[in-house]
Amino acid sequence: MALLFISDAARAAVWADAFAEAGEDMIVGEAAVTDPAAITHLMCWKPPQDLLRYPNLRVVISAGAGVDQMPKLPEGVDLVRAIDPGIEEMVRDWVVMATLMLHRAMPVYLAQAQQGLWKAQAGKHAKDTRVGIMGMGRIGTLAAQTLGSMGFRISGWSRSGRAVAGAQVFGVQQMDAFLEQSDILVCLLPLTRETRGILNADLFARLPEAAALVHAGRGAQLDMQALREALDSGALSSAMLDVTDPEPLPADHWAWRDPRVIVTPHVAAVTDHHAGAMHALSVIRATRDNSPLPGRIDQNRGY
Amino acid sequence: MALLFISDAARAAVWADAFAEAGEDMIVGEAAVTDPAAITHLMCWKPPQDLLRYPNLRVVISAGAGVDQMPKLPEGVDLVRAIDPGIEEMVRDWVVMATLMLHRAMPVYLAQAQQGLWKAQAGKHAKDTRVGIMGMGRIGTLAAQTLGSMGFRISGWSRSGRAVAGAQVFGVQQMDAFLEQSDILVCLLPLTRETRGILNADLFARLPEAAALVHAGRGAQLDMQALREALDSGALSSAMLDVTDPEPLPADHWAWRDPRVIVTPHVAAVTDHHAGAMHALSVIRATRDNSPLPGRIDQNRGY
Repeated sequence: MALLFISDAARAAVWADAFAEAGEDMIVGEAAVTDPAAITHLMCWKPPQDLLRYPNLRVVISAGAGVDQMPKLPEGVDLVRAIDPGIEEMVRDWVVMATLMLHRAMPVYLAQAQQGLWKAQAGKHAKDTRVGIMGMGRIGTLAAQTLGSMGFRISGWSRSGRAVAGAQVFGVQQMDAFLEQSDILVCLLPLTRETRGILNADLFARLPEAAALVHAGRGAQLDMQALREALDSGALSSAMLDVTDPEPLPADHWAWRDPRVIVTPHVAAVTDHHAGAMHALSVIRATRDNSPLPGRIDQNRGY
Repeated sequence: MALLFISDAARAAVWADAFAEAGEDMIVGEAAVTDPAAITHLMCWKPPQDLLRYPNLRVVISAGAGVDQMPKLPEGVDLVRAIDPGIEEMVRDWVVMATLMLHRAMPVYLAQAQQGLWKAQAGKHAKDTRVGIMGMGRIGTLAAQTLGSMGFRISGWSRSGRAVAGAQVFGVQQMDAFLEQSDILVCLLPLTRETRGILNADLFARLPEAAALVHAGRGAQLDMQALREALDSGALSSAMLDVTDPEPLPADHWAWRDPRVIVTPHVAAVTDHHAGAMHALSVIRATRDNSPLPGRIDQNRGY
């Protein structure tokens, strides 16, 4: 059995080490394939056109957790999504970091640093800052736990309104009450018909004055122009965005250059190369043992 | 008893209200002193030259949590550091933020943002990152708790080597073992003869390759030139500094402009004025009652 790896070089280096250590074969790039019949596993974001070139291909492993980019695979080829057991904690880490950065005026300090300006802003205690989290699934609950343990006053907003320890959770109908006490608003919502465009001028106007926005949901939930106007009017003081509209954000976009906004390129959850390699090795072992493939997708259902 | 207050006007206003409410005497500025013999307490960052002018001076209260700026006080005069009940949590918040920022490659993302570059760096799990905390007092312990709860592998280094839950604590003699497994090194040490210049080329060389530095101790502990060389050689990947040498950092200093370094202007702890006044009142009451002074410094040890 051998895995054909079609992805970037940085990831290839980590995978190559892991495969060598496990004594499994991995070939990087189609050009390096000398015996197509040896290829049993393929790791890629999208497969190459001619999959029939590999007569013994058994499994395609997606480079990402999602598989909506994958075409229909040939009969008898299984599809597996990337599994990274720590991915939700990783998003939690980004959310905690972003919340602290806005709480502690990092956009101001970073702008001052550009000018070599040594100037203290007023200090703030976590216990005096109210964090409102939209989306209280597993990631929202993890973020509430960590931020709550640091003294922030936490509330949540979710479809179910289901209680979460240490947080006051509001249901869908109580959005006004939730927003008016969110000094820092954190968006972790999934993208649905209801949440598309939800971060708009109307919502920003219902937050406390000079509130801050942490966005780790989906780009299409945010009206970027409304964000800019809310920053200009003082309705919002600052924002930290891991997702934008559009993505990638064009190099000349205002948000890159606005000192009140910090953008990261959709990396709150980014697969850890080592964890990805470990998962691929477990898929290869499961194939050999004829046991269930971890992360296998039902290609008719699509998940 | 009366307190002579030598600090800024914004703080004086808050203190004056608190002292009036408590029925204690406070005089703002030496020029306002009509009876030097009435002065029993002095609040200042650095005392005036001629302390012998105040024959009944009993206690000097530092305006800050640190006291290394204080000269040797006359025999019989106690030294007390500022205590703000939330100040240690505030430093913890900064340390957690800084650790996450280095863990999640924020220096790289901020440099990319300057160029409008949307490019993901490899993701990292907290559980794969070892954080070594130098100084396991109350702040170090708080930071260990929060970072440990997020999955980081925590070790500490302290004079006592006293155990802290969730952390492996090394004593003074085990510095090598501590350093060689600190992917992110956090300095929270007080400034003493032993710790002056401790963050130097020799220490950086004993860290894992491409380690990161979070510095919230004192500027004089850090050899800034050695830091620059360690960054250039790859011994260190990045640093986040709340204290520098000198302070303030001159506007044309290389550290402001180095994309691998993020500087904040000594704001990990910014005293809340009201909390400071409450502490000073408790010191005055303790002096009157002849009970232990809250925040009293052993002037021989220096902390």
